[in-house]
Amino acid sequence: MRLAELADKLGATLPDPASADLSVARVMTLEDATPDSISFIANPKYMGQLNGTRAAAVLADARTFESQRTRFPCPAVIVPNAYLAFAQAVQVLHPAPTHEPGVSGLAFVDAAAELGHGVCIMPLAYVGRARIGRGTVIYPHTFIDDDVELGEDCTVYPHVVLMRGTRVGARAILQPGCVMGSDGFGFAPSADGTPEKIPQVGVVHVGDDVEIGACTTIDRAALGVTRIGGHVKIDNHVQIAHNVQLGENVIISGHSAIAGSAKLEKNVMLGGCSAVVGHITVGEGAKLAAAAQTMHSIPAGETWSGVPAIPRGQWARMILHSQNLDEHVKTLRQLQKRVDELEARAKQG
Amino acid sequence: MRLAELADKLGATLPDPASADLSVARVMTLEDATPDSISFIANPKYMGQLNGTRAAAVLADARTFESQRTRFPCPAVIVPNAYLAFAQAVQVLHPAPTHEPGVSGLAFVDAAAELGHGVCIMPLAYVGRARIGRGTVIYPHTFIDDDVELGEDCTVYPHVVLMRGTRVGARAILQPGCVMGSDGFGFAPSADGTPEKIPQVGVVHVGDDVEIGACTTIDRAALGVTRIGGHVKIDNHVQIAHNVQLGENVIISGHSAIAGSAKLEKNVMLGGCSAVVGHITVGEGAKLAAAAQTMHSIPAGETWSGVPAIPRGQWARMILHSQNLDEHVKTLRQLQKRVDELEARAKQG
Amino acid sequence: MRLAELADKLGATLPDPASADLSVARVMTLEDATPDSISFIANPKYMGQLNGTRAAAVLADARTFESQRTRFPCPAVIVPNAYLAFAQAVQVLHPAPTHEPGVSGLAFVDAAAELGHGVCIMPLAYVGRARIGRGTVIYPHTFIDDDVELGEDCTVYPHVVLMRGTRVGARAILQPGCVMGSDGFGFAPSADGTPEKIPQVGVVHVGDDVEIGACTTIDRAALGVTRIGGHVKIDNHVQIAHNVQLGENVIISGHSAIAGSAKLEKNVMLGGCSAVVGHITVGEGAKLAAAAQTMHSIPAGETWSGVPAIPRGQWARMILHSQNLDEHVKTLRQLQKRVDELEARAKQG
Repeated sequence: MRLAELADKLGATLPDPASADLSVARVMTLEDATPDSISFIANPKYMGQLNGTRAAAVLADARTFESQRTRFPCPAVIVPNAYLAFAQAVQVLHPAPTHEPGVSGLAFVDAAAELGHGVCIMPLAYVGRARIGRGTVIYPHTFIDDDVELGEDCTVYPHVVLMRGTRVGARAILQPGCVMGSDGFGFAPSADGTPEKIPQVGVVHVGDDVEIGACTTIDRAALGVTRIGGHVKIDNHVQIAHNVQLGENVIISGHSAIAGSAKLEKNVMLGGCSAVVGHITVGEGAKLAAAAQTMHSIPAGETWSGVPAIPRGQWARMILHSQNLDEHVKTLRQLQKRVDELEARAKQG
Repeated sequence: MRLAELADKLGATLPDPASADLSVARVMTLEDATPDSISFIANPKYMGQLNGTRAAAVLADARTFESQRTRFPCPAVIVPNAYLAFAQAVQVLHPAPTHEPGVSGLAFVDAAAELGHGVCIMPLAYVGRARIGRGTVIYPHTFIDDDVELGEDCTVYPHVVLMRGTRVGARAILQPGCVMGSDGFGFAPSADGTPEKIPQVGVVHVGDDVEIGACTTIDRAALGVTRIGGHVKIDNHVQIAHNVQLGENVIISGHSAIAGSAKLEKNVMLGGCSAVVGHITVGEGAKLAAAAQTMHSIPAGETWSGVPAIPRGQWARMILHSQNLDEHVKTLRQLQKRVDELEARAKQG
Repeated sequence: MRLAELADKLGATLPDPASADLSVARVMTLEDATPDSISFIANPKYMGQLNGTRAAAVLADARTFESQRTRFPCPAVIVPNAYLAFAQAVQVLHPAPTHEPGVSGLAFVDAAAELGHGVCIMPLAYVGRARIGRGTVIYPHTFIDDDVELGEDCTVYPHVVLMRGTRVGARAILQPGCVMGSDGFGFAPSADGTPEKIPQVGVVHVGDDVEIGACTTIDRAALGVTRIGGHVKIDNHVQIAHNVQLGENVIISGHSAIAGSAKLEKNVMLGGCSAVVGHITVGEGAKLAAAAQTMHSIPAGETWSGVPAIPRGQWARMILHSQNLDEHVKTLRQLQKRVDELEARAKQG
């Protein structure tokens, strides 16, 4: 693609008019760039890699370009936000594979399934009495149960399982092996001491523009609805228990777990390997750090860390002191001796 | 369903005879109840929600009903244990979907497979030379290897994998994507420093009335048997390593991991995201708290917390002191100054 | 098998010539051994089990045999390394199931797929326009996308997902349900505050002799390559994020997570449930303990523990002091009182 054409698609300007006829075929990092690629500088940390890059051109904001002009070994492409422009350039130069609409003769599709226009159902998929929105792509080995609704333009990768009653909005991206609508984990001790299953008869409802990671599980509610808001993004290996409520734009990194009936308000972010116990609320825009576990509700906007989690500043001091305990305990023992001596002296005195 | 009929099924009594003709269609929480639903009050914490509920009737024990009579905005249904009655009412009013017996023409079933009476094998399932007990339901995309035995009345959800040699008892509920009989993780350093696989040739044996969560993995033994006792309940994303032994009624919450050859005696409970290292024993009825990791055997009946785990009371004091370290370190520094002064004064004296 | 024949295959010697005609059918532990089995003693910890074993013969190194001669209740088989010999004996006596070459008529195989000699593709597998090396076995419900390359003599267990662009070397063992090539987790805040997906257009490259655990996920790179070196062994439920680089012989235990662009140099070992944050390096041969999370690069050869991780010795002292905080705080309070008294006395003096 001519650089001028790409710049046009990105709403970018070319300070060097001669660069318009350069040709770019892919997006690459400054470090790995080949001469047919466009790269980007969005983080000052990587400024040192500008000099050596072999890229044909580099996306940058005006300020970065002006201040680092001498470091650019190739033409710049000026955009308001280089990171977003990078994402857009990837979409332009590396388009996602397209899929022919149609239903494979090797798939199982229930006679009562309702398929929107342009749906693609690949071989070995299973679609029960479900409703699939137009343009949605269903990969092989996907299981879509009776009474499931999937929105328009979704991508359902292989081995996704959507159990009965699940509703998913438009443009969902469901990574391989994620599961929605598995039973919640609920048992009551029966008379003879064995655990008795509480039937899980609720469902899972998911908003629009959601992405769910590989091998992530979202349990159906015991009663009612486990709810995932619009624009929620969940990484791999995350466990969402029954009756959890996730507000819009919630972002959950990999290997995290949210216990039953917990509520995460909109814009909450969870770091990797974090955990939220049941029946608490993480307030709007709050953050839980990686590897933290909160046993208490977190007020809106705060960042908590640790196990059990506490506000981040308090946690940082605790860790600092803990890591210096060797020193502190030595000081304590020296003080004991010094006080012993002072007391001995006082007695003599 | 008439309330009188439901009460009859639950062994319940209706203090208000006029309520017998009320009609209920579903079970819902006090908060979400619609006028055609029956609700329940099992936890004093939710007593405040009684007033406002729109439920047609509420399950309660006699004591709760007598003491809170004025709060009931609708008839009560008196039962010995409101939580168990809730579970039973759900079973009555929300029966699980039933499946027509028979083998789908789109499934692969080995000619030598032995299928009990009333087995249902859905499309795209794979059943090798296995034995499937009567009444068991096999969902699509399930893989049942040669030399597997599954008991009666099991429910095997989509994408379950049961590898060669696995034995599962009656009434198992296997949630989507769980795996039994994957190889244990065993390597020995070879002469050239690369890790050499120890072939894993043992199997997995699972008792009756077990439930295994979505994406949970249970590895085959290196030699011998990885054993899961009867009535064991395991949540999603749990890792059970080779040669682990789980006694009856063990309950393991989500995202937990049990390393090789560990033994959990009966009635052990593990909180979410907890971990047990290899070759140790967690004694009968012991509990490991959420997010804890034990490196040592836990005596029967004790509750341990933390990483590394210690008895819960000791852990609680440690956390309290740790979170107050800022204060303690200040005190320590003040003491240093005060002792400095005392010493200076003593010298002068 | 005659013991003499087995000894021959293992390069072992039989100190008791009369034992050559013994017959052994399986390998078992000292404790569980039946009279038709061969056992092994590789760890002095189990020496006490020698006396009572019912095994027909026991593998041991010469030194162990000489020093414990009286404890052997059965003939010994002398080998240089009893643990490796045990692994080899398992391979001889418990050969892995073999699979008839050929493509099942119930599998989907793209017309443009290239299959090596002796490939076995079982029913309900999906193979796109991919290249499969000779001798490789593909179990049911495996998904192999277009533009995937798999080496020779691989074993791909059920429900494995290999997405577009993935390359896997020879002799890989891919346990059930593992996923390679799922999208990395990358989002940029868009103008309206919703997270905008950064398209993930890189790939996954995996070396020779790798084993990947059940339900483990390896994300494709954002740009470029997520790289898994030769002889890497990864346990179940591990998350490898986009652009991670794993050197040769890296061993990762279950339930661990490695964040984006982290680099683990060769011979690194991660304990179970451990975590590595993004963009850091774990140096050659370094170890991260179970349940630890490192936020900083670890120098080659070091062992770190804790959250956040620190060098193991320092961590051990920190834990010791933390667990004794109750005592230390008592000492601190006593000192306060003693200094109060000394000060009062000094004032009076």
